[in-house]
Amino acid sequence: MSFDRVWTDAHVATMVPRDGDPLGIIEDGAIAAKDGRIAWVGRRRDIPAGAAITTRCDGAWILPGLIDCHTHLVFAGDRAREFELRLEGASYEAIAKAGGGILSTVAATRAATEEDLIASALPRLDELLAQGVTTVEIKSGYGLDLDTELRMLNAATALRAKRDVTIKATLLAAHAVPPEYAGQRAKFARHVARHIVPTIAAEGLAHAVDVFTDSVIGFTPEETEEVFAAARAMGLHVKLHADQLRDDGGAALAARYEALSADHIEYANAEGIAAMAKAGTVGVLLPGAYYFIRETHLPDIAAMRAAGLRMALATDCNPGSCPSPNLLLMLNLGCTLFRLTVAEALAGVTTHAAAALGLSDRGALAPGLRCDLALFAINRPAELCYWLGRNPCIGRVVVGQ
Amino acid sequence: MSFDRVWTDAHVATMVPRDGDPLGIIEDGAIAAKDGRIAWVGRRRDIPAGAAITTRCDGAWILPGLIDCHTHLVFAGDRAREFELRLEGASYEAIAKAGGGILSTVAATRAATEEDLIASALPRLDELLAQGVTTVEIKSGYGLDLDTELRMLNAATALRAKRDVTIKATLLAAHAVPPEYAGQRAKFARHVARHIVPTIAAEGLAHAVDVFTDSVIGFTPEETEEVFAAARAMGLHVKLHADQLRDDGGAALAARYEALSADHIEYANAEGIAAMAKAGTVGVLLPGAYYFIRETHLPDIAAMRAAGLRMALATDCNPGSCPSPNLLLMLNLGCTLFRLTVAEALAGVTTHAAAALGLSDRGALAPGLRCDLALFAINRPAELCYWLGRNPCIGRVVVGQ
Repeated sequence: MSFDRVWTDAHVATMVPRDGDPLGIIEDGAIAAKDGRIAWVGRRRDIPAGAAITTRCDGAWILPGLIDCHTHLVFAGDRAREFELRLEGASYEAIAKAGGGILSTVAATRAATEEDLIASALPRLDELLAQGVTTVEIKSGYGLDLDTELRMLNAATALRAKRDVTIKATLLAAHAVPPEYAGQRAKFARHVARHIVPTIAAEGLAHAVDVFTDSVIGFTPEETEEVFAAARAMGLHVKLHADQLRDDGGAALAARYEALSADHIEYANAEGIAAMAKAGTVGVLLPGAYYFIRETHLPDIAAMRAAGLRMALATDCNPGSCPSPNLLLMLNLGCTLFRLTVAEALAGVTTHAAAALGLSDRGALAPGLRCDLALFAINRPAELCYWLGRNPCIGRVVVGQ
Repeated sequence: MSFDRVWTDAHVATMVPRDGDPLGIIEDGAIAAKDGRIAWVGRRRDIPAGAAITTRCDGAWILPGLIDCHTHLVFAGDRAREFELRLEGASYEAIAKAGGGILSTVAATRAATEEDLIASALPRLDELLAQGVTTVEIKSGYGLDLDTELRMLNAATALRAKRDVTIKATLLAAHAVPPEYAGQRAKFARHVARHIVPTIAAEGLAHAVDVFTDSVIGFTPEETEEVFAAARAMGLHVKLHADQLRDDGGAALAARYEALSADHIEYANAEGIAAMAKAGTVGVLLPGAYYFIRETHLPDIAAMRAAGLRMALATDCNPGSCPSPNLLLMLNLGCTLFRLTVAEALAGVTTHAAAALGLSDRGALAPGLRCDLALFAINRPAELCYWLGRNPCIGRVVVGQ
């Protein structure tokens, strides 16, 4: 066999479950790449002979390149002043007067150029990449008008040329009701379905359409379905911000539309969870947002396990409810707050995160898959979940390079 | 006036409260150093003329070098396997059999050489330094015998020669009861008081003596007093792990001995808190440990504010209850979980952290103090608390260099 590159002197967590080991660990292993794909993975002593550029990894652990499958990485401004005021006991009215809330991010984002958006997103993206992340989803949703949603998605797409990373862009025009549609939520949802979704789809700027379904501060299930129907008509995947603050039946709705994922799902009920599992919809858990907004209602992990739901973990990096470009921190939060096992948490940022983005070519280490790798200076994979706010990543490989 | 170095084109949070501004902010400010001390701080346009090496900071914010006033940074091994087992539902017995608990860290630390201890602590120290930390306290307490406590303190002291940082070493021999004293807690406390404290003090290896006071898994108030009396007799400061898991009257005890600090204090009562404030004892809050062990009893911040208690914030970095060398993360945890204001949190890692270590030459930016600085690429100090798991530190200055 001929290979382009070989990584050796490493332990490998393939994330392909095997013989009761959910991480599919190969101690003293090696990985070989050819044409950007994994050509061989196994024990070092078994590697077929052949010339290749060989990297000795000094006992490091190799995992699939990590995948952050839910971010709002592109936005302008921040909400640090609002955070500060809230801690000082300011009322919501005072915060709104001082320019707080999601609409302050919308105003800042509308005022930003595409270059501004790229420049402010880049350091956040770089923090993710430094942790071994090789695939990132980025949502729009702070424009809430066609021009700005286009600009956000163009900025997200432009990041591909700046760094070695896969960016999956998602249209989230139905994130909130913009000021010019105040009191006309249904009308705005229709505008999204009839104008924004078809235009973005025609431009090929998004792989999926997401909706914030919430009966109080988001969109109703009916409005969501209108947007989803438009997405389907244009051949786009759908995703859902579902049951984050109350049970609006979001999980079942996501399943009905065979959504790639339903995200947050703290309040999702067991029937909805079972329907998701049956439909192949991934549950994306966002413990950073749970922590940051001081939510106390835990997602029903027992029901998710019972249903065999694939659970992913992501940062939800956004200026309002989780200002965190730190996927490794989410591993600890997921274990500590949601009591995920180490194996569940690690699958959540690899195999299951890939599924949440509809990507079947990555998320595990097996022949034929993309050779996206993350290297860590640790003694066992559990350390990735155990350390709190520490980054042991020492290398990243994208498409075999 | 003549200066050695000047930092300009920066905003300065002096942490010297002024005119109702607890952070003592100087926008468009400058700082000048002479012989390692701050010689001048004020508005850039007011700086006295004179030649000096000038660093333009490109609009960064300058704070006093951060101080982590409570860590157990020196230890061998980690407890990632125990973390993993617990999430899989393993019983305490099973974990103990698999080598879990503090005694597993004691066994690993006893087996480690001084060089091993230095090598494993260095990357944790480096993570702190990368966040703008310039002073770190390090406790012993995983030896529980004279030789290993000496070795731990020697390792902590040796770190000074490896990096530009102030290390304050604290003897915590009364951290747990070692296996060879099983069932003889009082006898071990007496051994600490009569032999370990005097020897360490004679060697000049610790500035303070700390005790884990806890009626169930630590030492009783009486045993604590015996150790404290020995420390005082040798001219050492005292500190206390107090009221972390239940109210054992630790806060009042700390006040009675004019301890530099009482740490954790989740269960401290209002009278004890008032006594601490009166005695000048700092309250060190450790929200990372609160989070990691899933404590639910909040420290009585209202009583602390009412008493005018100086509150510090620290990492408690240790392998069992807070594996986190991330002081910036503690700012967010302190605000989010304990509802500290931004000003309280920032004082907690500067002025009040200095007081918790008995250091009057640092923690703020004013003429005559050490020129230890931390530079951050942020738009306002609140961002240091707002971002979750992000490090905007772009520079560190120690003793004016």
